[in-house]
Amino acid sequence: MTMPIPTGLIRDLVARTLEEDLGGRGDITTLATIPADAVARFDIVSRARGVLAGTQAACEVFGQIDPAIKADWRIGDGKPVMSGDVVAKLSGPARSLLTAERAALNFLGRMSGIATLTRAYVDAVAGTDAAIAHTRKTTPGLRALEIQAVKAGGGASHRFGLDDAILIKDNHVAVCGSVGEAVRRAKAFAGHMTRVAVEIDRVHQLDDALLAGAESILLDNFSLEDLRSAVSVAKGKATLEASGGVDLNTVKAIAETGVDVISVGALTHSAPNFDVGLDEA
Amino acid sequence: MTMPIPTGLIRDLVARTLEEDLGGRGDITTLATIPADAVARFDIVSRARGVLAGTQAACEVFGQIDPAIKADWRIGDGKPVMSGDVVAKLSGPARSLLTAERAALNFLGRMSGIATLTRAYVDAVAGTDAAIAHTRKTTPGLRALEIQAVKAGGGASHRFGLDDAILIKDNHVAVCGSVGEAVRRAKAFAGHMTRVAVEIDRVHQLDDALLAGAESILLDNFSLEDLRSAVSVAKGKATLEASGGVDLNTVKAIAETGVDVISVGALTHSAPNFDVGLDEA
Amino acid sequence: MTMPIPTGLIRDLVARTLEEDLGGRGDITTLATIPADAVARFDIVSRARGVLAGTQAACEVFGQIDPAIKADWRIGDGKPVMSGDVVAKLSGPARSLLTAERAALNFLGRMSGIATLTRAYVDAVAGTDAAIAHTRKTTPGLRALEIQAVKAGGGASHRFGLDDAILIKDNHVAVCGSVGEAVRRAKAFAGHMTRVAVEIDRVHQLDDALLAGAESILLDNFSLEDLRSAVSVAKGKATLEASGGVDLNTVKAIAETGVDVISVGALTHSAPNFDVGLDEA
Amino acid sequence: MTMPIPTGLIRDLVARTLEEDLGGRGDITTLATIPADAVARFDIVSRARGVLAGTQAACEVFGQIDPAIKADWRIGDGKPVMSGDVVAKLSGPARSLLTAERAALNFLGRMSGIATLTRAYVDAVAGTDAAIAHTRKTTPGLRALEIQAVKAGGGASHRFGLDDAILIKDNHVAVCGSVGEAVRRAKAFAGHMTRVAVEIDRVHQLDDALLAGAESILLDNFSLEDLRSAVSVAKGKATLEASGGVDLNTVKAIAETGVDVISVGALTHSAPNFDVGLDEA
Amino acid sequence: MTMPIPTGLIRDLVARTLEEDLGGRGDITTLATIPADAVARFDIVSRARGVLAGTQAACEVFGQIDPAIKADWRIGDGKPVMSGDVVAKLSGPARSLLTAERAALNFLGRMSGIATLTRAYVDAVAGTDAAIAHTRKTTPGLRALEIQAVKAGGGASHRFGLDDAILIKDNHVAVCGSVGEAVRRAKAFAGHMTRVAVEIDRVHQLDDALLAGAESILLDNFSLEDLRSAVSVAKGKATLEASGGVDLNTVKAIAETGVDVISVGALTHSAPNFDVGLDEA
Amino acid sequence: MTMPIPTGLIRDLVARTLEEDLGGRGDITTLATIPADAVARFDIVSRARGVLAGTQAACEVFGQIDPAIKADWRIGDGKPVMSGDVVAKLSGPARSLLTAERAALNFLGRMSGIATLTRAYVDAVAGTDAAIAHTRKTTPGLRALEIQAVKAGGGASHRFGLDDAILIKDNHVAVCGSVGEAVRRAKAFAGHMTRVAVEIDRVHQLDDALLAGAESILLDNFSLEDLRSAVSVAKGKATLEASGGVDLNTVKAIAETGVDVISVGALTHSAPNFDVGLDEA
Repeated sequence: MTMPIPTGLIRDLVARTLEEDLGGRGDITTLATIPADAVARFDIVSRARGVLAGTQAACEVFGQIDPAIKADWRIGDGKPVMSGDVVAKLSGPARSLLTAERAALNFLGRMSGIATLTRAYVDAVAGTDAAIAHTRKTTPGLRALEIQAVKAGGGASHRFGLDDAILIKDNHVAVCGSVGEAVRRAKAFAGHMTRVAVEIDRVHQLDDALLAGAESILLDNFSLEDLRSAVSVAKGKATLEASGGVDLNTVKAIAETGVDVISVGALTHSAPNFDVGLDEA
Repeated sequence: MTMPIPTGLIRDLVARTLEEDLGGRGDITTLATIPADAVARFDIVSRARGVLAGTQAACEVFGQIDPAIKADWRIGDGKPVMSGDVVAKLSGPARSLLTAERAALNFLGRMSGIATLTRAYVDAVAGTDAAIAHTRKTTPGLRALEIQAVKAGGGASHRFGLDDAILIKDNHVAVCGSVGEAVRRAKAFAGHMTRVAVEIDRVHQLDDALLAGAESILLDNFSLEDLRSAVSVAKGKATLEASGGVDLNTVKAIAETGVDVISVGALTHSAPNFDVGLDEA
Repeated sequence: MTMPIPTGLIRDLVARTLEEDLGGRGDITTLATIPADAVARFDIVSRARGVLAGTQAACEVFGQIDPAIKADWRIGDGKPVMSGDVVAKLSGPARSLLTAERAALNFLGRMSGIATLTRAYVDAVAGTDAAIAHTRKTTPGLRALEIQAVKAGGGASHRFGLDDAILIKDNHVAVCGSVGEAVRRAKAFAGHMTRVAVEIDRVHQLDDALLAGAESILLDNFSLEDLRSAVSVAKGKATLEASGGVDLNTVKAIAETGVDVISVGALTHSAPNFDVGLDEA
Repeated sequence: MTMPIPTGLIRDLVARTLEEDLGGRGDITTLATIPADAVARFDIVSRARGVLAGTQAACEVFGQIDPAIKADWRIGDGKPVMSGDVVAKLSGPARSLLTAERAALNFLGRMSGIATLTRAYVDAVAGTDAAIAHTRKTTPGLRALEIQAVKAGGGASHRFGLDDAILIKDNHVAVCGSVGEAVRRAKAFAGHMTRVAVEIDRVHQLDDALLAGAESILLDNFSLEDLRSAVSVAKGKATLEASGGVDLNTVKAIAETGVDVISVGALTHSAPNFDVGLDEA
Repeated sequence: MTMPIPTGLIRDLVARTLEEDLGGRGDITTLATIPADAVARFDIVSRARGVLAGTQAACEVFGQIDPAIKADWRIGDGKPVMSGDVVAKLSGPARSLLTAERAALNFLGRMSGIATLTRAYVDAVAGTDAAIAHTRKTTPGLRALEIQAVKAGGGASHRFGLDDAILIKDNHVAVCGSVGEAVRRAKAFAGHMTRVAVEIDRVHQLDDALLAGAESILLDNFSLEDLRSAVSVAKGKATLEASGGVDLNTVKAIAETGVDVISVGALTHSAPNFDVGLDEA
Repeated sequence: MTMPIPTGLIRDLVARTLEEDLGGRGDITTLATIPADAVARFDIVSRARGVLAGTQAACEVFGQIDPAIKADWRIGDGKPVMSGDVVAKLSGPARSLLTAERAALNFLGRMSGIATLTRAYVDAVAGTDAAIAHTRKTTPGLRALEIQAVKAGGGASHRFGLDDAILIKDNHVAVCGSVGEAVRRAKAFAGHMTRVAVEIDRVHQLDDALLAGAESILLDNFSLEDLRSAVSVAKGKATLEASGGVDLNTVKAIAETGVDVISVGALTHSAPNFDVGLDEA
């Protein structure tokens, strides 16, 4: 896996998910209808075409519900999957498998949805230099999982949160007074291991940003023409990132302007679910 | 608010979200560029048309970041909102407002997206008897929030989790042997405050389900014709719920068959983000 | 086990119990007096007659203290037990066994006490149609365990908490204005998977409750005569539950009125401890 | 209050209790039937005679549910209370009061039950030198609350858990070989701020215990005659504690033997609930 | 404050500290000896010369113990302090002040110790270009606090943890094969917001590191001569960081070689406590 | 191990430490540079002379990162160690070993530092009756670990926290009025398992303390002469503890006055790190 989630974090995420679903009485449907000693075999089956993600979380679900569940994964994170493909073969206590079903599928469905959408963007810019990156527009509490899914789809990392890199946004500039002043303050504050980026929304701010030493410049809602201008001026002097108005129809043209990175909020905030189900084996 | 989330739960959800974003050093961009004593005014502005949700979570974000933030909400959960509408007017320490921005918007965007999609389904079945209900296909860890958003959009409740009602699914029936046997076991297990529902995927299972005493019957992936048959046989004897193959194009016809409830996984697993931003006031 | 507690929940309950007992230094008596390499055998021995419960929690105690403890359980949850019976044979590191002793016995003693008292009520109504159900008058934080013990004693489930069923109490009616109005509001709010019950304390409220569609009616502190009246009017139209003034002397007569359910707070809030000890094997 | 529970601990205990009761949807009965803007007044009323305890926990319940609840306490922890007494007058949002009702009453009922039983034991030994002390036979997770209730009833402290004092029990002696050897090891291990006690079950072990330097000696299941022998030998040389076979009929005679402390597991493990309710004011 | 710790994090750190100190019974000395209604005034007084840090944590201690404690801070984080200086004037309930004393002083003492030692290093390199930075050799669980203290003392940030920047250490190179290969892999993996640094321990690895694109190079245990060589070759091409063998006697000469950053583990792992006490006002 | 930390506590301490270091993305350096299937062997090597401590925590680090890590410990807690000694031989997945490195070394370094300093004090008083004890001046959140390290170095226990013994400090006496009054209140409050100690700072308070029944007397900042006076008066009547002005130069003379215990804050608040590293095997 490109980027496994730290074991403590994935354990807590899954534990909370199971608490939410199981409450104080557990899966009363299964307790009522399935004998304690029944065993069963099920397949996790893809019902669509795309890119798989979420196997680490699904494994953790099975492990927390019952270590006696055996999961034989046939397809791993980041791999292409077709409708009808068997993703994993499961066996074990029937009660445990049925109780784990929805939680495991919810992780796989959401994360494969993100990986699949990411791959579509990545494919769309193939042949250009542009990387497709996530943003901080992630589902509250699930950022690590969603970034893992973006990586599984071939996307690139951006900063994880507010604390690991400096990215000066328009509202910072507004309070601070100018792009240059904001960047200078940031450079003075940042240690040598922290990168400083700044968002600009007009071409003329570019010089200010470069002069002040910005290492990465986020060109927000620039026209293609303005992106090309920015590239002609600043390529190689700072990393150039485009954002705003990006969709699968526009992303190729944006990439062809020569920007280094295109960040896409939709990867995480608007990816539709990827359909995956549990069938009797 | 139709269904406020218990204070302990919303506090924990928001605390985890902020931990994820703030890490051990907090918002280093804001610390670097904004003076500690700067104050500011911002508006939360809608950039689309739909139904608002998520205000309880956004309030909690502001309160946890800094009790000195003042939020004057102009539009509440469940209310229609147009592009350009000011949802709330914010004022307070500039650092706190900028640090809270993304977390608050992420809650509002996701939940308003769900409420907006739910409202579209509810509107589509207007004039029929069918309620639009959520499923358990929710984002891991966020079920309470997402159900709150469904309610804000006019949707109906289903069971919250595995522990508060009995819903026998196809895989239970497969292990158990028959619909009738599964329902009988469930009725024997359930206390008098717990409802028993069963999923069937063929019309002929209906009698079995009714005979065994199922109070609600989930008709999964039935054709419109089969839904009508089921309604003609069972309406009034049990609650009839349709699911599978439901989208905004098909939902009206499904509702017109006379079913009582239509459950839609997409409400929570595939609602696109609702665009909302923070502008200088 | 009729209703095993979800693994995450039992793990947390036991972890907190051990934190409480072990603090920051652990079992200093055992560390001081018992060599690290001593092994021992002990029996968990019943010192009374009743019904066993609490084995899942006791197992979890041993597992968390030391996976090297071996417990061979001779009697399971819900089974009758006599004074002198060996409930389980334990072996393993002497330090671990001694450290775990009190926590394990506290779970067994409390829960077997509840199961034993529940069984006494269940036996008292044998031959009638009435089920004996728990209430929400449980020990703070231990509801899942105490309901498990009630089930082990042959008792029936009621709602688990405030969120999984609607039960309109007298104070709700007082604020709301009337039984009928309260039930109507509840029916409008509840989804199709949530049952609606109402408490009444006078016979004449029965019609109101039925007319408004209450599915279960809690007859609080009714005389036997009034219970019989209620049964003659409403049996089969709604589940009839009696509560108030129930003890082992009165419960049989209450059951013989024909009510469906008798709920007993004392099962969980006043069950005396069941005596169980640890003896050298 | 004699011994307020640390604020962090009481906050966590109450938060867990409310999570258990409120789940993910909260109090759906109240949300369904009570308008959001309704206000109400209720009294907490005693329905029995005894000693009050649990006010700190009840206050915390109200505060966590809604800081707008006002509670005017008329009777405090440790004070006598009669049937019909108004313990506290409550006012505030009707929804909040109804949601908090059961959790608050559960704390008051359990803890006042313990305080009331403790007071009965304390009164029974009035005129002797014996203190009535709790044991570690407490409800899992609630030890701090239950000890607070014992103190409210006039009882004395024992060790809180395994880590704050050394108490060598019979099973330690069995593994260790002899009372004297166990005490010697304990004295060598203990720091100067930790007391060393030992349990003996036969009179002849007394000399061994004293010689080895035990500061407190627990006389387990001694006959009255043997207690008197022990007192005649050891009074003033070590604290003498009696336990086993203690009930309200026997405790006076035990106290009159001259022992310093009588520890009673029943205070916490078998106290019946104290009946307290919420009435419209 | 240069870098306030996120409110959720400081709240949790302090809550755990108080749990550790207060256990289940709280401050029994204070409960025993101080009347509940006593009020008092105390001063936090410095007993040494140095730089203050830890005020945010101390404030949080007072707030969690009792919001009625008033603290009037006379000296803030990062400010010089002399022996005898009054750091803060405290007033409020005597019990609360005495209970909070040690926890608050422990935070102030440890963190001021770090700030004071950091300032000594910073002063020692005054006049050179070298910044003094912390490392990851921090006290387990207290990294955010200790980095805050380093900043208060004038030190510079390094990466916070393993996840916010790439720093290839000698053991990575050993497994990976060569400096150049390791850096190339890191550059391919890192997103555009993550800096890549590499540790080398011999001068000849410098070209490899530069060629592969390392942005920062950690010169570990280099002689002064080798540091000068490295500076002459690489200054301006990558950030040059020296580490190893740094103490207050050697740091000036190291700084004079022209390196950009000197990282010092001792700042956090070996700073002696700064003496600060609580005196009656 | 003299005093293993309860498993729940050590698990939580290590989990928090790893969360701090790993964040949401984990060890990106290792993920970037080391193949997932690489295996490696490393030795934990001492780079100084002293006493080892921290092995329980280090083991827990390895276990939480990856159960596939094998650690063969050659030297245990409390054992002497020389520079160059191999403390443990490690093997397993290279990624896991590199990710665990710093966290494990941080525990070993801090705790061995404390054990080493404690041993120096213990050795300095060899031949006298005085024990060397820790204080509550420990690192916030790490008290259990630090006391374990003190024990490993041969030190003695003091009270763990505010709740397990009574120690009346100067500020208590100030509010309370007199040493005698404070001790009398404490004796009345304390149960029979809790020891009562009092701090005095002048010789003439000794009689008051003894008369009121103090079991241990803390002689704070006494001159050697005054210590000798105190010993001559009170030795054998109460435990005599010296504190204040204790360092490795003065401790022997203090011990020779005949006091029973010398408590030293520096053991935990000012012990320098013990140097230990990870070398390729």
